[in-house]
Amino acid sequence: MERTKIYYDKKQTLKDPVLVVGLPGIGNVGSLVAEHIKNELEGKKFAVLYSPYLPHQAIMQSDGGLRLVSNRFYHCKDKKGRSILILVGDTQPSTTRGQYAINERIIRFFKSLNGKKIFTIGGYNATNQYVQNPKVFGVANSAKFRAELNGKGVIFGKAAGSIYGAAGLIPALSKRYGINSACLMGETGLLEIDANAAKAVLEVMTKILDIDITFSNLNKIKKETEKIIKDIEEASRAQEGHVGKDNLTYIR
Amino acid sequence: MERTKIYYDKKQTLKDPVLVVGLPGIGNVGSLVAEHIKNELEGKKFAVLYSPYLPHQAIMQSDGGLRLVSNRFYHCKDKKGRSILILVGDTQPSTTRGQYAINERIIRFFKSLNGKKIFTIGGYNATNQYVQNPKVFGVANSAKFRAELNGKGVIFGKAAGSIYGAAGLIPALSKRYGINSACLMGETGLLEIDANAAKAVLEVMTKILDIDITFSNLNKIKKETEKIIKDIEEASRAQEGHVGKDNLTYIR
Amino acid sequence: MERTKIYYDKKQTLKDPVLVVGLPGIGNVGSLVAEHIKNELEGKKFAVLYSPYLPHQAIMQSDGGLRLVSNRFYHCKDKKGRSILILVGDTQPSTTRGQYAINERIIRFFKSLNGKKIFTIGGYNATNQYVQNPKVFGVANSAKFRAELNGKGVIFGKAAGSIYGAAGLIPALSKRYGINSACLMGETGLLEIDANAAKAVLEVMTKILDIDITFSNLNKIKKETEKIIKDIEEASRAQEGHVGKDNLTYIR
Amino acid sequence: MERTKIYYDKKQTLKDPVLVVGLPGIGNVGSLVAEHIKNELEGKKFAVLYSPYLPHQAIMQSDGGLRLVSNRFYHCKDKKGRSILILVGDTQPSTTRGQYAINERIIRFFKSLNGKKIFTIGGYNATNQYVQNPKVFGVANSAKFRAELNGKGVIFGKAAGSIYGAAGLIPALSKRYGINSACLMGETGLLEIDANAAKAVLEVMTKILDIDITFSNLNKIKKETEKIIKDIEEASRAQEGHVGKDNLTYIR
Repeated sequence: MERTKIYYDKKQTLKDPVLVVGLPGIGNVGSLVAEHIKNELEGKKFAVLYSPYLPHQAIMQSDGGLRLVSNRFYHCKDKKGRSILILVGDTQPSTTRGQYAINERIIRFFKSLNGKKIFTIGGYNATNQYVQNPKVFGVANSAKFRAELNGKGVIFGKAAGSIYGAAGLIPALSKRYGINSACLMGETGLLEIDANAAKAVLEVMTKILDIDITFSNLNKIKKETEKIIKDIEEASRAQEGHVGKDNLTYIR
Repeated sequence: MERTKIYYDKKQTLKDPVLVVGLPGIGNVGSLVAEHIKNELEGKKFAVLYSPYLPHQAIMQSDGGLRLVSNRFYHCKDKKGRSILILVGDTQPSTTRGQYAINERIIRFFKSLNGKKIFTIGGYNATNQYVQNPKVFGVANSAKFRAELNGKGVIFGKAAGSIYGAAGLIPALSKRYGINSACLMGETGLLEIDANAAKAVLEVMTKILDIDITFSNLNKIKKETEKIIKDIEEASRAQEGHVGKDNLTYIR
Repeated sequence: MERTKIYYDKKQTLKDPVLVVGLPGIGNVGSLVAEHIKNELEGKKFAVLYSPYLPHQAIMQSDGGLRLVSNRFYHCKDKKGRSILILVGDTQPSTTRGQYAINERIIRFFKSLNGKKIFTIGGYNATNQYVQNPKVFGVANSAKFRAELNGKGVIFGKAAGSIYGAAGLIPALSKRYGINSACLMGETGLLEIDANAAKAVLEVMTKILDIDITFSNLNKIKKETEKIIKDIEEASRAQEGHVGKDNLTYIR
Repeated sequence: MERTKIYYDKKQTLKDPVLVVGLPGIGNVGSLVAEHIKNELEGKKFAVLYSPYLPHQAIMQSDGGLRLVSNRFYHCKDKKGRSILILVGDTQPSTTRGQYAINERIIRFFKSLNGKKIFTIGGYNATNQYVQNPKVFGVANSAKFRAELNGKGVIFGKAAGSIYGAAGLIPALSKRYGINSACLMGETGLLEIDANAAKAVLEVMTKILDIDITFSNLNKIKKETEKIIKDIEEASRAQEGHVGKDNLTYIR
């Protein structure tokens, strides 16, 4: 496999699809939010992304099967039956070239599904302390789209600096594909899994996506992702691009 | 050479080919098993894989010739005359991209030969101590194939974690090519060359492949691979992706 | 995105276009000179270069928008209405392959605009001390072009050693495209932002390009680039090719 | 520039061309031998190889020009007017992928010139001490070619281990192109520039190539290459694949 591939295994009938991208990152806010929406709305997996830029790692499963490290697309619906696609994954690519290759591939796939809007979710690391009442900051790739999101609880124009990885590349590159895209960032401190920041973003997302989800049980959300985090960390170790002889066929 | 190439030098008449992949890895179980089956069944070399993802290294030979670092395919037969293909090699690629490129290339080549089943062999590193009576753990890429392997001495659903390199990528990617594939792992401690773990896998393989092989002489198997190990280590040094001026044209 | 792309967004009517390339480097002389000419001549942005060899980083903007790390082309005019194109950027690629890919892409784009001459601007690091009266050294890719630049204040044949990055690759590769190209280097010490060296090059450039610019206010030039420098440094941190888990979606 | 390119600038009328490859490596034996034959036979430069796998570095020249880091082909003749092509260069690629890409490119170019034989020159590092009477060891890619070289002073079948870089890859890969190729290695200790080892190989080469060259003056040969060595070292620093901000546009 020389290039990133998306296998669109279960063709979907889609209505006005919106994509929500939540991949591992700061505070794991993205993963928490996306996994939770997917679970609450009982999303159906319909496509999977493999890439030579992801770790060369197969994960053993309890039924005796195995699966490749991947990103996965799920299909859910809002109250009016419109399609919400959720992208979750084990990890992000460790190289710059991988980031550009995978993120543009995601945009093109979504474009081929006639998608018009993408939200990426991340954490905004403004402090080193626990944030009691996290804000949700945002950037969006057009003034029109920022106006559309007005009044939903997203603060535009106050965050500064750079956004790395999918959360930044997808909105920035989407502009070239005529796709409206915003990055929504939950304010977070140095927590590895910040369920509080995720809750803040989830509250905003329910308004934007017109969905009902339960998020009172923060601990449940947090535990759901603890397993994910462990997988990510394992993946990260193999993600350096180069591997020594010692971790070829390494299993434990 | 910009891409991985397989030279299919000696066209074979194949009957229901099965592929056994045994490349360097944990405990060198894979190499030991594959080299031993190849030797016992007097396999004939028929194809060779070169790749820009393998070390840029030519190995001098005692007749004054030289050969490139490579993976090599051998053709053996079971008791009923069916084809068993064995893949052995000097090393695995050191980069993630190399792993994906080479392992998918292997699957595609085997698919072009109308192959239907691939076994990859590895070590399962469950302990830091010598394992007296090693078990053989397995994962397979379909429930049907796991059922087919039932009663052959492979334990499914008990191993956990990740499999790196060819041993994991080939079964995981094979699914997309309609090829049944399993990874069989001999339980091993921290031995560099674990002939005991290899013996356990070999016992299982004789049942699965319907072959007769001698494996009472563990020391012989071990010595056979000691030379291989040394070659691997030398290759590994050049495998970092980057080489300094000092080991260009380095010979000793 | 697998390859470097230039989006030529606002088609220009060009007259005898000359290209001035000023990207981050030693003393930031290149950036200073190019940014200043662009500002003084009120250049209009007309094209942008994105590349998988640049950091995977989106920069948040004060209006709530975001933009990808990039190189950008501006269109200015000289006293006679001839076109001066200016290339500025956040950073240069961190890998050798990226340098070759991006710099040849720039040449080919300029060639497609019927461009005939390219100037790259750099710093010449001849000493570790502040240079009070910096000279401007040059190299050019043809004897004819060196003759043409005679008497403009550029010293040819005195600088020795190597030029890294765009400043060297563009003139060297341009020869193959029939484009006259010179690298002009302001003598500099170890200053991170050497406005004095930039001023020396600017004085030479006004003669070469037949333009009038104000450059008495060195402090203003310097401050203009201080912001750029900070952006560069941030970009550089993400530029190692490999990124850890911790700076995915890292924002501050 | 995304791929390695050879510019065949001055078309040559060739007669039974043989290629001698002498690039930087152990003891710089390859560079010494090739540069010396080229000088003695007054070779004419006719082609140049550029590659994104070589350092992104332009070398300033005393006439005010500049040239890219490169490998260069020269055309000489033997006593009977047959063509001897010499390949020399500033450096070898620092990555495995670069080694495969460039060396196969060289073979294909030579094949397109109807070439039949390639000699690569290297050092054989058998000891850590100065070698007073160095032997010349060899490997060749066919038994027939080894027989042809019999009696010329090359010792086959005694050297063991691996050959890195062009010296090993070219003979090994040439086999697939129907080109006879041998690597000749001068026995050397730890000298950076081993003119004594080079002399031993040169003596063998005069017999193989049917040429007359002066090689009594070892010091002259050595000084010729001292300048080359310095260039190589400078190139090596930029050759790590990644470069920091500090050596962009770095000149001294």
